[in-house]
Order: sequence, then C-alpha cells, then structure tokens
Amino acid sequence: MNVAEASLRARAAKTVPGGMYGHKNVAHLPAGYPQFFQKGLGASIWDVDGREYIDLMCSWGPIILGHQNPIVDEAVRRQLSQGECFNGPTERMVELAELLTDTVVHADWALFCKNGTDATTLAVAVARAETSKRKVIIANGSYHGIAAWSSKPEAAGIPEDERANQIRIEYNDVASLRAAVDAAGGDLAAVVLTPMRHDVFRNLEPVSREFAQAARELCDRNNAVLILDEVRTGFRIDPAGSWAALGVQPDLSAWSKAIGNGHALAALLGTRALETAATRITATGSFWFGSVPMAAALATIQEIRRPESQALLAASGTKLQQGLLTQAASHGLDVTVSGPSALPFMTFANDPEFELSAVWAKAALDEGVYFHPTHNWFLGTAHTDAVIDKVLNATDVAFAQVAPLASRRGSDDLVRI
Amino acid sequence: MNVAEASLRARAAKTVPGGMYGHKNVAHLPAGYPQFFQKGLGASIWDVDGREYIDLMCSWGPIILGHQNPIVDEAVRRQLSQGECFNGPTERMVELAELLTDTVVHADWALFCKNGTDATTLAVAVARAETSKRKVIIANGSYHGIAAWSSKPEAAGIPEDERANQIRIEYNDVASLRAAVDAAGGDLAAVVLTPMRHDVFRNLEPVSREFAQAARELCDRNNAVLILDEVRTGFRIDPAGSWAALGVQPDLSAWSKAIGNGHALAALLGTRALETAATRITATGSFWFGSVPMAAALATIQEIRRPESQALLAASGTKLQQGLLTQAASHGLDVTVSGPSALPFMTFANDPEFELSAVWAKAALDEGVYFHPTHNWFLGTAHTDAVIDKVLNATDVAFAQVAPLASRRGSDDLVRI
Repeated sequence: MNVAEASLRARAAKTVPGGMYGHKNVAHLPAGYPQFFQKGLGASIWDVDGREYIDLMCSWGPIILGHQNPIVDEAVRRQLSQGECFNGPTERMVELAELLTDTVVHADWALFCKNGTDATTLAVAVARAETSKRKVIIANGSYHGIAAWSSKPEAAGIPEDERANQIRIEYNDVASLRAAVDAAGGDLAAVVLTPMRHDVFRNLEPVSREFAQAARELCDRNNAVLILDEVRTGFRIDPAGSWAALGVQPDLSAWSKAIGNGHALAALLGTRALETAATRITATGSFWFGSVPMAAALATIQEIRRPESQALLAASGTKLQQGLLTQAASHGLDVTVSGPSALPFMTFANDPEFELSAVWAKAALDEGVYFHPTHNWFLGTAHTDAVIDKVLNATDVAFAQVAPLASRRGSDDLVRI
Repeated sequence: MNVAEASLRARAAKTVPGGMYGHKNVAHLPAGYPQFFQKGLGASIWDVDGREYIDLMCSWGPIILGHQNPIVDEAVRRQLSQGECFNGPTERMVELAELLTDTVVHADWALFCKNGTDATTLAVAVARAETSKRKVIIANGSYHGIAAWSSKPEAAGIPEDERANQIRIEYNDVASLRAAVDAAGGDLAAVVLTPMRHDVFRNLEPVSREFAQAARELCDRNNAVLILDEVRTGFRIDPAGSWAALGVQPDLSAWSKAIGNGHALAALLGTRALETAATRITATGSFWFGSVPMAAALATIQEIRRPESQALLAASGTKLQQGLLTQAASHGLDVTVSGPSALPFMTFANDPEFELSAVWAKAALDEGVYFHPTHNWFLGTAHTDAVIDKVLNATDVAFAQVAPLASRRGSDDLVRI
C-alpha cells in the first residue's frame, strides 16, 4: 500500500467506525483498491498517492458529465457567489421543477430532498397519505435506500415490526406480483420497483413489458400507487423516464445520484392526481432548499438530455460492451455482458463467488482503470471514444490474467465431475 | 406583493406541490414574508425583488458564520477545484472526524451523512444494534426529523404500527421519564433528547440538571443508549457538546445544521463502546462522502470554536435579549425572552395564538429585520454589535405597533372577565 493511503487508513481507524463505512468501503473490494481519493477531472480520478485511474464507477452514479465538468462548475460557482442556503428557496428551485417536469414524461410536480432514501421514502408516504393504506410491495434484491420500510430482514438495528408492512416479490415474475397484491388484501398502498433489475452480485436484467404492464394494471385495479425508483437508472436509460419507451408511466418516481453531477440532491416527481397528498406529508430538511446543488442540477440535466449526450453514452457503452465480449472470446473466456449502455456490467461463467471478477477488476486497476467486480458500472459523457480505447487496452491485459485461472478452474470442474 | 415574488409564486404553484413545502413554506408566516430569496451576504439576505433584511433565522440554523463567509467559501472553492464526489472519501473526511472528536467531549468517532434525520435515525439504529432492544423514548413536542420512528400520531402517510416502538415523555419531567422506562419493560434501546426544550410555539426551556442526570442514570441502569439530538443546538450552546458544562455525557450525538455554514452535512458522533455497533448498521448514501461540504465543515468548526467567536455570539445574544426586554417594558409590553444567547426567542403575554408575535414580526420585517413569530431564532458571528443596534432600531418600531393592540386586548380580557 502506498504511503499516503496507509497513513490515512491508520488515522481513519481511530476516528471512523471500522475505519470506513457504507458502500464505498474498500473492505468490499479486492486488496489493492484505494480507499481515499484526492482529485477527479473528466473521466479520471487520482488516489491520494497521485495514481490516476479511468473511472468506470462515476462515484457510484453521481458523476454523469465527468468530474469537474466546466458547465456544471460554472453554474455552481455562479450560485455560490449569491450564497447557498436561505430562509426559503431561490428561483433555481422553480426552474428545476419546471425543467424536470418538462423532461420526465409522467411528472407534473417536483419536490426536492437530499438522499435517494429521502425520495423513495417520501414516495411511499405520499402513496399512503393518498390511499390511507399501509402495505408496500418491493422486489427481493432491489435496493431502495436505508429506511426501515424497505429494510432487509437481516438489517442490524431495525426491528422486524417496523418493516411489517413490506411484501416481497421476485422481479419480473408476474405471478409473484399477483400473489403479493392478493396477500395485501385491501391494504396495498404502493408497488415500488426499480426500472430494471440491477441487484448487486447479478447480471443486469431489463424489465419485461409484461411485468411493467402488470404492475401498472394491478395498481390501477387496487387503487395503489406505482412508484419507480430511478435513483440508480435516472438519466442513464432515458431522461424522459426509464419506462417512457415502454409506454408504462409510474405515478411517482424517485431521482437522485446523477441529477446534479455529484452535488447532493434528490427529487420526488409525481402526477397531478397525487399533488394534494404530497402537500399533506411531512417533507422537509435543513438543506433541502439549498441553491447550489439545484444550480448544478439545472446545468446537468440540460446537458445530459441533449441528443448528442445521449448518443455519446450509447456509442461509448456499446463500444465498451462489444469490446469486452470480443476480448473475452479472444482469450477463450465465457462472459456475460449485461445492462444498458450507460449502466454496463460483466460476469464470468462458473464464477459464483466472483473470484475471477475480482482478479480481472484488480488487474484492470493495476492498468489504471477503476471497475467494480460485483456491482454494475456507470458511464458518463467523459467516456469518449478515445477513453474507451484506453479502457479496452487495460481490460485486454486483465482478461489475459484471468484466462489461465479460468481454464484451470474449467479443468477442476472436469475433475470434480 | 412585489413583481418577482408574485411571478415566482405563480410559477411554483404549477410545478411544486402546494407551491412550496416544508418548514420554509411562508404559509406558516404572516402575509408579506417573502417566499423566495436571491442572495445572502454576512448578516443580510435579499429577496427576489431586491429588498434587504437582516437575517435572524440564519436559514433556520445552518448559517452560523454569516452568508458567504469568506473563510468557508475559500475552503469550498479550493475543494471544488479538486472535485466533489469520488469512489471514496478524501482526506477531508478523516480531518473532519479528527476535528469533531477533538471538539466534542464525549465523541470517539464520527460517521457522516446529509440530513439531521439521517443522524438521529442512524443513532437509533446503533442503539438497537448494540442492545438488541426496540423501544425508544422521546419527549412530546421534540422534533427529531421526519423518519417513522419519531413521527407524531397525526403524521400523514406513516402507519401507526411503524412508530409502535416509540414511548413519549414530558421534557424535564423525571417522573414521566421513569414511568416510560418502566413501560419499556426490558425492551428499552434508547432515550433520545434535545439538549434543551426548544419546541415550536413555546418559550425555550433549559434542561434541568436533575432531568439530564436521571436520563444518564436510567440509561446506564437499563443498558440503554442516551442519544443527544444536537441538530438545532449544535455549536450554538457549546461546541464541546451542549451538556458538557453539566457534566452529563451522551453515548451518541447527532449534529447537522450549523456544521458546514449552510453546506449539506450531518454527523453521528459516538463513544468507543458503540463503535462496533456502528459498523454493523447499514449507513450509506450517494453523497455522504462528498468532499466539499466536509471542507466547509472543517473551516466552519475551526472558526466557531474559537473563543472570540463564542464571545461574540454571547455578547450579541445578550445585547439582543436585554434590548428586547428593555424596549418591551418601555412600551408597556409584557414579554418573555428565552433561550441561550445564540438561540433566542420571545413571546408576548396573553398571546396564545401568537397574534401579537405575528404583528411584531411583520412590523420588524417591514423595517428590514427577518424574525420568525413562532419558532426560535438563530444568531451567528455576522451579528456584530453594530448589526444588533440596527436590529433593535427595527424592533422598537415593531413594539410601538404592537403596544396599542396589546392594551386593547388587555381591555377585552377585562370586559370578558
């Protein structure tokens, strides 16, 4: 481990629980990944020892226009020169509500908060306030934040009774959805779904049209609210809404991550029919009306919804995915590449513990490209054609390191059989 | 209503639920208060029609060093020139954990998040993870955020069963606290208290030493966790912790609002004994490792904990409180001024509906000073002696407007009797 990284880890061990917490804890990654960073610019990030990486995680989603995007930074600095936080919002809030409702097809109004968890949790509150019902259907493996209502049975520190209104289904399984609606009896407030199946440790899976339509119909028939959790997918599948092309519209949608290119903001969007319910819930926070992240979001959304931006994401994502498939085949490796162009992921065949993925990701890291072995990746407009070329140079080396391990594993399997 | 304000309200009515939401909604204020702001500098804020006010709300707490404080802004801009949000934290996180644990007496570690609600809710999760118990005692009227565990019975959109582990007491009432501990049986995870009673619509009330000590003793005796919610009080009573002078230390404390002079950040601080439990809960968010608010917090805390800053807050607060009392008496008005110097509040006698407060606050607003009629105010280091002089010029005019109403009300009362 390099000097600055080792020193910071030692210091953090004394004043941060476990030395680090949350989804960015390197304890979840192969040894050798840096825990601390000092800088980001465009598609690159630098660790505290000055080593540069091409960043395929985009801060786990927030960075969609590259680090220190000049258009966003200019908007941020301009707003900072007025101040960040007042006794009410600025004009930025109204502009942003207008821009979001103009961009996202189903949305008539917007309510701003800070975390993805805030947006999904407010959505559930609006649904319950509107319907006067309690039960919420969510899919196994789907992540909707850290609030009690969506917590897993094994979650430490959250009593079982505080998630008693949760009913679990299998994503894309219409029969399990119907069974859950039946199980809710007359008490179904909402069905909360991600626009695709993007559970960690798993290939990404698009929603089936049948499943999306069934969710819409079952909500309509049972006076329940359909909530789409766009926190991870937002602006990377379709700025109009990830199900817009399917023709299935949610009643509410939760957005965060990429909304402000790294600046802390989330939004709950809803239809006119739910506006009154939205005024009845308690929705507030000390920083929710802060102007600087809203200025960042205005710049970010205007930029990302440009057809050129969407075309760049599509082209770079396709090039990366096809490049990985071609390289893997040339090394005799069996991989699955999944996900939309801006949210790609790759797994190796016969690698249930992600051991090959870990070797591959670490090898790419050593070549200067930051992937995650078990969680989907994120692309942004800083990933130009030339950047993807560099990425593919690194992945070719990584595949070469995995190839002998995979063929040995293949032999082991044969031996075991 | 002025032109820009009217135009923004009309636009907001179309795309924001009810035109505005949350605690900064002017629907809670007398007519004539501006909903939208364009700028803040030092102790002043400007509404969108360019009218300047001396700001006694400090954005409801976050602004403690004045708007656009140059030291904080310099730290923010310096950090922005490295980037805001990466695949892990920057050195700023470690520095900030070190600074907070050095500043706050009871704290051995720090965990960062975005909202006050995040910090109080994580605190409860740590307490439950540590104790394997469920019940949480909170005081009537105390606000700990918008999560289900602390919600009020009348909260729309939160089912009663999701707050079933909540037990209510009266603040400063040791007997009610003891009764609640008994009611929890063997299932008490935590007692959550604000460092003073600062409910809205009420004079502020310091904690009694007896009550604070009883809370500590009852938690110790029942293997429960004492959580201090410093979100509103933090850095304005004592940077070492609001109960430090009392000699009563909590196990966990939640901080936010003033921590970064307006930049979105919150922190959960805890003792070494609870560190392992803190590593077991799910505590994460997309923006929780963002470096810019942490850079702002480093500058803010270093500045606010200087003895000169604390002395300025004390002197200005005392001058304001004594000035209000003197002025009120000179106008023949009976008022109660309450709260610590940096968190003052004032009520009128015989004004249960806060009608006199509304007239007074609106009159002060017309004189260019922004108070809140029903919620405590916030002072910061931008409130210099000269600024308080200007404030008192405005309040003298405001008292003059209230005086005839109060004396008429006095006569009405006599008639009614």
